[in-house]
Amino acid sequence: MSSLRVVSSSLALALSCATALSAHAADSPRPLYDWSTTERFDASRVPAYAGRHDAVYARIDADMDAHIANLQRWVRQRSISAQDDGIDAMANLVADDLRALGFAEVRLVKTPGHPGVLGYYDAGAEKTLVVYMMYDVQPVEDNWQIDDPFAGSLVKHERGTVLMARGATNQKGPQRAFLNALDAMIKTNGTLPVNLYVVAEGEEELGSPNFGKVIEPWVERLRKADGAFFPMNIQRPDGSASLNLGVKGIVYFELESKGGAWGGPAKAEVHGSLKSLVDSPTLRLVQAIASMTTPDGNTITIPGYYAPVKAPAAEQQRLINTLAAEADDSTMQRSLGVSHWIDGLSGREAIVRNLYDPTLNINGLWSGYTGEGTKTILPHIATAKIDSRLPPGLEPDDAYRMIRAHLDANGFKDVVVRPMSGYPAASTSVEAPLVQAMLGVMNKYGAKTRVSPWLAGSAPFHQFTRTLGLPFVFGGLGYGTGAHAPDEFMLLHPAEGVKAAGLADIEKSYVDILHALSEAP
Amino acid sequence: MSSLRVVSSSLALALSCATALSAHAADSPRPLYDWSTTERFDASRVPAYAGRHDAVYARIDADMDAHIANLQRWVRQRSISAQDDGIDAMANLVADDLRALGFAEVRLVKTPGHPGVLGYYDAGAEKTLVVYMMYDVQPVEDNWQIDDPFAGSLVKHERGTVLMARGATNQKGPQRAFLNALDAMIKTNGTLPVNLYVVAEGEEELGSPNFGKVIEPWVERLRKADGAFFPMNIQRPDGSASLNLGVKGIVYFELESKGGAWGGPAKAEVHGSLKSLVDSPTLRLVQAIASMTTPDGNTITIPGYYAPVKAPAAEQQRLINTLAAEADDSTMQRSLGVSHWIDGLSGREAIVRNLYDPTLNINGLWSGYTGEGTKTILPHIATAKIDSRLPPGLEPDDAYRMIRAHLDANGFKDVVVRPMSGYPAASTSVEAPLVQAMLGVMNKYGAKTRVSPWLAGSAPFHQFTRTLGLPFVFGGLGYGTGAHAPDEFMLLHPAEGVKAAGLADIEKSYVDILHALSEAP
Repeated sequence: MSSLRVVSSSLALALSCATALSAHAADSPRPLYDWSTTERFDASRVPAYAGRHDAVYARIDADMDAHIANLQRWVRQRSISAQDDGIDAMANLVADDLRALGFAEVRLVKTPGHPGVLGYYDAGAEKTLVVYMMYDVQPVEDNWQIDDPFAGSLVKHERGTVLMARGATNQKGPQRAFLNALDAMIKTNGTLPVNLYVVAEGEEELGSPNFGKVIEPWVERLRKADGAFFPMNIQRPDGSASLNLGVKGIVYFELESKGGAWGGPAKAEVHGSLKSLVDSPTLRLVQAIASMTTPDGNTITIPGYYAPVKAPAAEQQRLINTLAAEADDSTMQRSLGVSHWIDGLSGREAIVRNLYDPTLNINGLWSGYTGEGTKTILPHIATAKIDSRLPPGLEPDDAYRMIRAHLDANGFKDVVVRPMSGYPAASTSVEAPLVQAMLGVMNKYGAKTRVSPWLAGSAPFHQFTRTLGLPFVFGGLGYGTGAHAPDEFMLLHPAEGVKAAGLADIEKSYVDILHALSEAP
Repeated sequence: MSSLRVVSSSLALALSCATALSAHAADSPRPLYDWSTTERFDASRVPAYAGRHDAVYARIDADMDAHIANLQRWVRQRSISAQDDGIDAMANLVADDLRALGFAEVRLVKTPGHPGVLGYYDAGAEKTLVVYMMYDVQPVEDNWQIDDPFAGSLVKHERGTVLMARGATNQKGPQRAFLNALDAMIKTNGTLPVNLYVVAEGEEELGSPNFGKVIEPWVERLRKADGAFFPMNIQRPDGSASLNLGVKGIVYFELESKGGAWGGPAKAEVHGSLKSLVDSPTLRLVQAIASMTTPDGNTITIPGYYAPVKAPAAEQQRLINTLAAEADDSTMQRSLGVSHWIDGLSGREAIVRNLYDPTLNINGLWSGYTGEGTKTILPHIATAKIDSRLPPGLEPDDAYRMIRAHLDANGFKDVVVRPMSGYPAASTSVEAPLVQAMLGVMNKYGAKTRVSPWLAGSAPFHQFTRTLGLPFVFGGLGYGTGAHAPDEFMLLHPAEGVKAAGLADIEKSYVDILHALSEAP
């Protein structure tokens, strides 16, 4: 997952030890949220899923070699979306695997980018689940820790036997494990406990620009489902898990200043000594960006930007109270190489800031000469890549409108805002039957689960919650790490003392999730 | 010349049509200079040099093929300082040429960088001139307009026959033409009218970091000279010339913000969604830079920065009054691709701003991800290359001190200022005998000469005016253009209607300059 990785693997869990309210400037536009409850949500009190599907479990155990081979087969098929490397072959592989499982309807969907895959398995069941998949992976760099990141290598690791490969955990491993679980159910019972849609895209790592097109042909059918699910390894080696019930939205744009009628050199750089007479587009960009935050860079000064954010509802407060009681800011800070959070925040305050604050962040910035030594130019163009994370309530169109209005009002009408991405937040209630089913299964396997209202990261999951109107859960047993990194792996057979599930239990938990959903009220 | 190029070839001349005072905010730290005189300096009233040295002139005419061959020999020797390409060979070539001319003392001077060359010709004369030379050239790019920029090609051009080559006008052409003039004088008269030092460096294009080391061995001797001279083509095709009597100083530094004890990620980028909790070094750099100027980027807000600048003296006012009467802002603006000057300045105001304003300019700026598409990171480091041009009065040490103090006072103690260069302005009085001799020679050849107190560009000519305490002139007849560009040339034989001097007249004017200096009171 392009946007969730760092946060889901390390942050969302590890926040804090609720201390007193600290840094809130009197004139800050940041709202102070009332806290109406001290109750804590206790995931362990959700009844453990009690169903047993022993014949299916036995089938999974018996077929484990073939199931591992299926994961290897998926990671061996290159599918680097950014480089259009293996994309069509992977799309066909997904479609063929669905057909082989017995999906009666399977189709490739053309988009302006890479194709999507739609599949439907009609189990004649009462309940219907939509399963989201991404079949693309990140590019690989030269620094990979094994010779061939597409070899499907099984590697001995301190955590156990792992599948080390690009895509191993992000996201081919858990997805194919899910299909293995379907295979075992169908072979054992002849069918599934729920009807099942698969909606797969090949552009997740590009920001899912065409995912709307992928689901478009079946959007009315999909809306009638009971929920949507994205198989994901969310355990840590100690067996505990983090279940995030949503994501922030995002606007990602380039901000650019270029010489023109307002001033500055329009065609090319000029000599740096001309600054006395010639406006600098680079300084203009710097001033435009600076106008958007307080001098510490941490509070957005765009009028109205914080106002639409929805205050923490009681349900969310209960989730956050639990997270705060278990938070460990300093461990998280150490792992990130950060000495402290903004304003010295910790505990509940840090969690609330992370979940409810819109952000303004510079991902990249460039202008002029960036090589060695001194070159004396006044560049004619300067560009920044900026993103703003949007909590529920702050809509991308409104964010763009406020940013534009702020620049205009501050004399930066000529500074271009070039939208590259924009979508709203998505969140699902912890009370949704699908979430309760998920938690029940986690409890069955003894996976202590931290539940967060959403992640600070972004993904276009509004397509499920808003476009399709479905509860959406991304999770499952299993441990993997190194998404986007040169040592990506998914744990298949845990070493002694590692509590995260191995592949067999992961698949069994998927079996249980489908049954739990089918049995939900 | 690395820093003067653009300005000397196009700007210094072309400024304005004195209009009323316009934009000066009441609270601006920029001083308003009193103007005490409306008199104009008239270069044409300096008596034309009347001496005739016909035998030398005839020798120049007779040897023209050999003289052109000398220029070709110099440009054929590669000497790219940035790439250490041909440097030692070129230093030896300069030394050998000086010896061949009869310089009794010639030595190479080791420096931490490329070697210098010192030479002394003892003519037993009363007056002594120091001639500065740079023997290095800029790198060449793939887009050169002729196959080999080091072939010494003579090319038919609309301006006439030109030597098109890297270094043709910057600065090998005029320098070797000067040595050709010496050769003709020595061959004709057996000696020179003045004693002559040559001080040559191979790092001008790198900012002359070791020029002090080059002159160090002879610094006491050099101080006893009567002036210093840098041969340069300062004519335009219409025959007019621009004589600039100095340069601004400069501080050039990198400004850097990196995560650390103050906040932000210290080791590596973190996920962009963490901006809600983690300080951004990139936003910090942006805010630090923004704090140094007004929101329009055009007035420096560093306390005290404008105060030390020396107000225009009466002599400088007279020079500026003349420049203002002939200024043509719009032509200059068109050539630069700039719609208007800062604050709508024109005429005398623009000239004064250009000469007396310290500048703050971003030459380059970079942080984080600058490729295609969207990558969501919070970078741990951000860097800017900034220069500030220093008019006479504002010393580099003081500039650095004020910049540091301003950052500290505004809470940016952690933002690093990394000095890369720093030297003061240099200027010579128009009344200096060497300048008067130069103007007399320009008048002899009918070259209408605009005289500016200094350039807005920078060069370390304080080494002459301050270290050696000498009047310093850079100029001479001749036309060349494209310094640093892929079509650099020096005009050798002007086409019909082109009024700039050809090589023979250039060399004759150098003969006259030495004689004029020897005859000065």
